[in-house]
Amino acid sequence: MNKSLMTDYYELTMAKTYFDQNEQDKVVYFDVFYRTNPFKGGYAIMGGLDNIISYIQNFKIDETDIEFLRKTGDFSEEFLKYLSELKFTGDIYACEDGTPIFPGEPVITVKTKIIEAQLIETSLLTYFNHGTLVTTAAKRITDAAKGIPVMEFGARRARGVESAVDASKYAYIGGCVGTSNVLASKLYDIPCLGTMAHSLVCDYNSEYEAFLNYAKSNPNNCVFLVDTFDTLKSGIPNAIRVANEYLRPNGYTFKGIRIDSGDLAYLSKKARKMLDEAGYKDAKICLSNGLDEQTILSLRSQGACIDSIGCGDNIAASLERVGGVYKLVAVEENGVIIPKIKVSNDYKKTITPAFKKLYRFYDKDTNYALGDLISLHDEVIPEDEYVLISPIEEWKKSTITNYICKDIRKEIFINGKLVYSLPSVHDRKKYCEEQFKTIYEEVKRNTFPHQYYVDLSKDLLELKKNMIKKYRGE
Amino acid sequence: MNKSLMTDYYELTMAKTYFDQNEQDKVVYFDVFYRTNPFKGGYAIMGGLDNIISYIQNFKIDETDIEFLRKTGDFSEEFLKYLSELKFTGDIYACEDGTPIFPGEPVITVKTKIIEAQLIETSLLTYFNHGTLVTTAAKRITDAAKGIPVMEFGARRARGVESAVDASKYAYIGGCVGTSNVLASKLYDIPCLGTMAHSLVCDYNSEYEAFLNYAKSNPNNCVFLVDTFDTLKSGIPNAIRVANEYLRPNGYTFKGIRIDSGDLAYLSKKARKMLDEAGYKDAKICLSNGLDEQTILSLRSQGACIDSIGCGDNIAASLERVGGVYKLVAVEENGVIIPKIKVSNDYKKTITPAFKKLYRFYDKDTNYALGDLISLHDEVIPEDEYVLISPIEEWKKSTITNYICKDIRKEIFINGKLVYSLPSVHDRKKYCEEQFKTIYEEVKRNTFPHQYYVDLSKDLLELKKNMIKKYRGE
Repeated sequence: MNKSLMTDYYELTMAKTYFDQNEQDKVVYFDVFYRTNPFKGGYAIMGGLDNIISYIQNFKIDETDIEFLRKTGDFSEEFLKYLSELKFTGDIYACEDGTPIFPGEPVITVKTKIIEAQLIETSLLTYFNHGTLVTTAAKRITDAAKGIPVMEFGARRARGVESAVDASKYAYIGGCVGTSNVLASKLYDIPCLGTMAHSLVCDYNSEYEAFLNYAKSNPNNCVFLVDTFDTLKSGIPNAIRVANEYLRPNGYTFKGIRIDSGDLAYLSKKARKMLDEAGYKDAKICLSNGLDEQTILSLRSQGACIDSIGCGDNIAASLERVGGVYKLVAVEENGVIIPKIKVSNDYKKTITPAFKKLYRFYDKDTNYALGDLISLHDEVIPEDEYVLISPIEEWKKSTITNYICKDIRKEIFINGKLVYSLPSVHDRKKYCEEQFKTIYEEVKRNTFPHQYYVDLSKDLLELKKNMIKKYRGE
Repeated sequence: MNKSLMTDYYELTMAKTYFDQNEQDKVVYFDVFYRTNPFKGGYAIMGGLDNIISYIQNFKIDETDIEFLRKTGDFSEEFLKYLSELKFTGDIYACEDGTPIFPGEPVITVKTKIIEAQLIETSLLTYFNHGTLVTTAAKRITDAAKGIPVMEFGARRARGVESAVDASKYAYIGGCVGTSNVLASKLYDIPCLGTMAHSLVCDYNSEYEAFLNYAKSNPNNCVFLVDTFDTLKSGIPNAIRVANEYLRPNGYTFKGIRIDSGDLAYLSKKARKMLDEAGYKDAKICLSNGLDEQTILSLRSQGACIDSIGCGDNIAASLERVGGVYKLVAVEENGVIIPKIKVSNDYKKTITPAFKKLYRFYDKDTNYALGDLISLHDEVIPEDEYVLISPIEEWKKSTITNYICKDIRKEIFINGKLVYSLPSVHDRKKYCEEQFKTIYEEVKRNTFPHQYYVDLSKDLLELKKNMIKKYRGE
């Protein structure tokens, strides 16, 4: 299916306006940013760039689209012809998938002709919002699990099948060890994982028979779901019995059990004891049942015996939003870049104008990220010392030295040509892990995190203030 | 893309178990139901059946799937050959999209061979959960709006592009008058709606110029977004000026304005006054900005002047879940249907066994729905009088008379053949509206709704109790 028309209708009526004004070649700059960290956290993790690249490469308003638009009666033949020949001809700069990002940062900048810029807005935001949400959710949950492997099991709770497949991919990039989603595993070479369902246990005449039959068919993948009837009295004893009678005698490993209901802290400790006493110290305990960050932290603090976690709802069907927006920040007039602004009564909602760059300062010794700087696109950043100034609370200053300053966005498209080579899903996962290590624990804290420095350069801040004054008529 | 493998891995390892036990022809019964109403409400609205039908019709594990599965090393060639030939051969009974449904009801029953039943589980649930969530969200929000038209604007906040397109469709079925999503409009013939974005206003040298240019290109679709700089001082005066100078003199209608920030109650009343005084009593006021049920109810109670609502986040990107599950309720042995149960410590999580039917009693005079009854599939329901008994609080009884009792599920597939003719999106919307009218206002109330009666027949309740006793060893 050609998805190019997944755009809001006003993009087309505005495009028509520009076309009628003969402005179709006007070059504009749009920033993508978000305003508030999801999960009341201190960061988000960039996601969705892969899908954005694919959308833009395949962007083509085809004959059926034109026919549909013609029928609305809202568009001239000239404009329809223009649309039918439209493709993306501009530049895109973006943070790579897996990069820690912060509120207000221009994580993507699109520089292109105005009609192209408008038409790609909706899908670009949809992909950014979804990818960033799931990658962030996965990173937060795997971070809370502190090394305990987390498996993504949420396909059935995702918002549609395509959404589920994407979610499995972003969950993997964000830190999960694998997914239960077979299609995602096939498409992205992600490890495919799973245990068994209650239906298997119910289908047979007894739990023992179900476990035994499953073991015979899947001797190398035996994780028994033990809570169908009674975890301690029935499930675990039957699992041990099948391990004793079938797995061990035939040289197979008893991989472990999964507990999906009840008091997981209590049951997992009891389970560990039963497995150990039966001689299965290596049998793993997998916990699931709506686990989220708080529950995982709580289980760990209670000394629950957890070898792995199955996470459904709270990664693929997370109850949060990223809320990324796409705002005009500059236009070109006779080759000059003119900054633009939208003023709001709420300072936080006032956008930061101009074509900008996004830098991150890393400590030369520790490699920790010290803060980010949003500057005008052509500013030179001093190499030795920099004073970070909070754009909202200007008395907050921080002088930093001994740093490496990196432009953390990559060129993705230049003159409509893809110049970025998308790393494999595995390399994106690795990159995400590495980048996450550069962020201070205080910023990554589960609750009430330290606010990471994201400051505007002096020149940019001055420009912004002057523009606000001008628009307020001061 | 072939989506048939959008299934959890354990479905395949369980399928293999059944195959190795030579049980592949065993017929089983699975129910889809959900446990808790979303939005702390009194109901949900069925959605997703359309996608389920399409998934099952196209179900085919193709050569690339088989190759992928072969590489895992987990499956025998015999089993892979079986999978490559697999298609759905059974029966599906389901409530139609748009039907009000309630917790615990078997809204879908799948009767088919065990391996087929397992493999379709994941996608079936994904589609049900998403479709039902969005349809319910749309119904609740349009119900709160009480006749004020609600437009679905949420594509950019949805979870991926396919998810956005589906959301627009379900939003329409659930009561929205149209969508901003052009692709959804094209695919489903849903009215395409929209106003303009802040970027248009920012792009031009003045708000007035932006409005004027837009009006010239879209004279029949002129809804001006008036909050870019200052709603009352700048936005509305400029909109009126363009109406005076361009629209009225040229015989066009000034359709209205949209306010997307600030105190919407206050601003909308001021705006109404300004528009009226300028002679534009027919110009409409559209409100947007994260509107949800509570805010809409509050705006109405404050006497805000609202002619239409644009709803983004809270329909397409609703922060709720439906949590539909798929549970084995019976198996056939030698042609006899044997009920199955999964017992849980939590009574609410214990499933209701057996192949069942779902009836709704309608009052003959008022057509209000009096309550639902879940019965064994072969029970005869008396035509004159029935005593509804709460399955949890058995002292709660209600004797009803003067009713029409309807089986509210339709045959969808019989022996693998689609026997249901899916109504158009427009007919589903109409059906949804009609069905919604049969539900008492008390059940539809925004907060603390009256709990709708969903009772088990005496025979079914007895069966369930006896099975629980047996499994608890009592």
